[in-house]
Amino acid sequence: MEITKENITEWLKGLQESICSALETADGKSKFLVENWKREEGGGGCSRVIKDGNVLEKGGVMFSAVHGTTPEFLLKEKEHSGNVDSNSTFYAAGVSIVLHPQNPMVPIIHMNVRYFEMSNGVKWLGGGIDLTPHYVNDEDAKYFHTEIKKVCDKHNANYYSKFKRWADDYFFITHRNETRGIGGIFFDKLNSDSEMSFEKNLAFWKDVGSAFAPIYVELIKRNKSRSFTGANKQWQLLRRGRYVEFNLIYDKGTKFGLESNGRIESILVSLPLNASWEYNFKPASGSEEERTLSLLKKGINWV
Amino acid sequence: MEITKENITEWLKGLQESICSALETADGKSKFLVENWKREEGGGGCSRVIKDGNVLEKGGVMFSAVHGTTPEFLLKEKEHSGNVDSNSTFYAAGVSIVLHPQNPMVPIIHMNVRYFEMSNGVKWLGGGIDLTPHYVNDEDAKYFHTEIKKVCDKHNANYYSKFKRWADDYFFITHRNETRGIGGIFFDKLNSDSEMSFEKNLAFWKDVGSAFAPIYVELIKRNKSRSFTGANKQWQLLRRGRYVEFNLIYDKGTKFGLESNGRIESILVSLPLNASWEYNFKPASGSEEERTLSLLKKGINWV
Repeated sequence: MEITKENITEWLKGLQESICSALETADGKSKFLVENWKREEGGGGCSRVIKDGNVLEKGGVMFSAVHGTTPEFLLKEKEHSGNVDSNSTFYAAGVSIVLHPQNPMVPIIHMNVRYFEMSNGVKWLGGGIDLTPHYVNDEDAKYFHTEIKKVCDKHNANYYSKFKRWADDYFFITHRNETRGIGGIFFDKLNSDSEMSFEKNLAFWKDVGSAFAPIYVELIKRNKSRSFTGANKQWQLLRRGRYVEFNLIYDKGTKFGLESNGRIESILVSLPLNASWEYNFKPASGSEEERTLSLLKKGINWV
Repeated sequence: MEITKENITEWLKGLQESICSALETADGKSKFLVENWKREEGGGGCSRVIKDGNVLEKGGVMFSAVHGTTPEFLLKEKEHSGNVDSNSTFYAAGVSIVLHPQNPMVPIIHMNVRYFEMSNGVKWLGGGIDLTPHYVNDEDAKYFHTEIKKVCDKHNANYYSKFKRWADDYFFITHRNETRGIGGIFFDKLNSDSEMSFEKNLAFWKDVGSAFAPIYVELIKRNKSRSFTGANKQWQLLRRGRYVEFNLIYDKGTKFGLESNGRIESILVSLPLNASWEYNFKPASGSEEERTLSLLKKGINWV
């Protein structure tokens, strides 16, 4: 099939639908609420939001495809210098997911795949997937990273280690000196280089998107029926507080959305239903909470 | 008394103590936990945090006095151009308060007074006080702004209108197109001008700090015993979510603290114990919640 923005966009819409369908089956109770929206300056999107599920307390699987005059700050990036027409227009399409489960033993997950092009022919692919367990479970962590590594290895032997390191650096809460969770992969501005053509990167990118549902459904299956205490639930709320800190302070997608007059409710659907902040909270010595905190750092080999 | 950073610092410490004492009396149950801390690069502070009170669910009255080499970004500000030594040092002292009450009929309040000086003799005063009712109560709003106006009018006939406008602009959640609450006053870099000497501005600044306790104690007295429903409590959590958005995205003190390696737990004590985000929440037509939302805008004359 020819590579066009239309074809990529259609693929993204299909991805959104198939992910929502898999998640509804896994949840067994709630259905996604579907809302289509238009962006004044061009394009729009389809927000699918789930809440009050058996498994999922709150989450969004959001598709958008927007276009218009290229924003000033993008024109200034070094990738485009000397290569930009003053009437530059852009097209950006993607699927973004954040899911907050009910049970603190089920991890929070995030996935994003995005495509960007400009009228001068510049185009790229970006994406990422990362897992934020409230309690780090070694087997799940190994499973998650192994599955992600398989997706990478199928296309390029260097991608997993390169994009895993990028995720460690990107999903990092600097002021807490903590990673958001156990990471995953993050990549941006993939086009073509000496090793990989755009076509081949596109195939990799699609595989990342397609891997999301089976991986998270498996993690749900493993953990949704595990028992938990009130203290586990309280810890979940504190970890969600950290998630809020990351998303409002560091997340580039959120920042871009808020600054470019995006649809606020679609951008901030990533925030949990409830979160908590306790002054100077320190987990008990030797506790599971303390163990999880000790594992929120860069450079851990989970595979 | 001579104006020195030592005298101003002592006054701030006394202010912190007297405010905590007044709040403990008003709360009737909880006491402030006191923690002294040191800053590696110079100076330190005293954090006083209250929780689980009859009236106050969570809050901090924080004093700090820090010094060191002047950060690059401050040297670049236009106020200092041509007036800066390369070995510039700074001294900054202040008291910062955020209080989150239990009862949604009691407003959230914030107050800050800060003093800054550099080794080249540049110095200034800044501060602000603003009220964030979960439900706007017209009488309380009038009382609050009238008391603040009295403090201003005692010193300068222009200050209230000027600093009230500044607060409307500063305490604004751009991406929501909402003010954080009903405002108050905000001012920065007061020194001396044709009308007011530094001494006179210092007297105004001290009066702002001293006005805090009696005003908030009165608002507590008026509202702490009002009844409320579960729906009122849920609305309070949503409004706290907005407070979190403001503090993590826009608040300059928070941003400065996070970027300058400040004491994280003291900076983020401004966040509520619990907050909530519901996708696309719209208050019922004609409800009190809708009325409050309609009043979260700039330029309202509350006096």
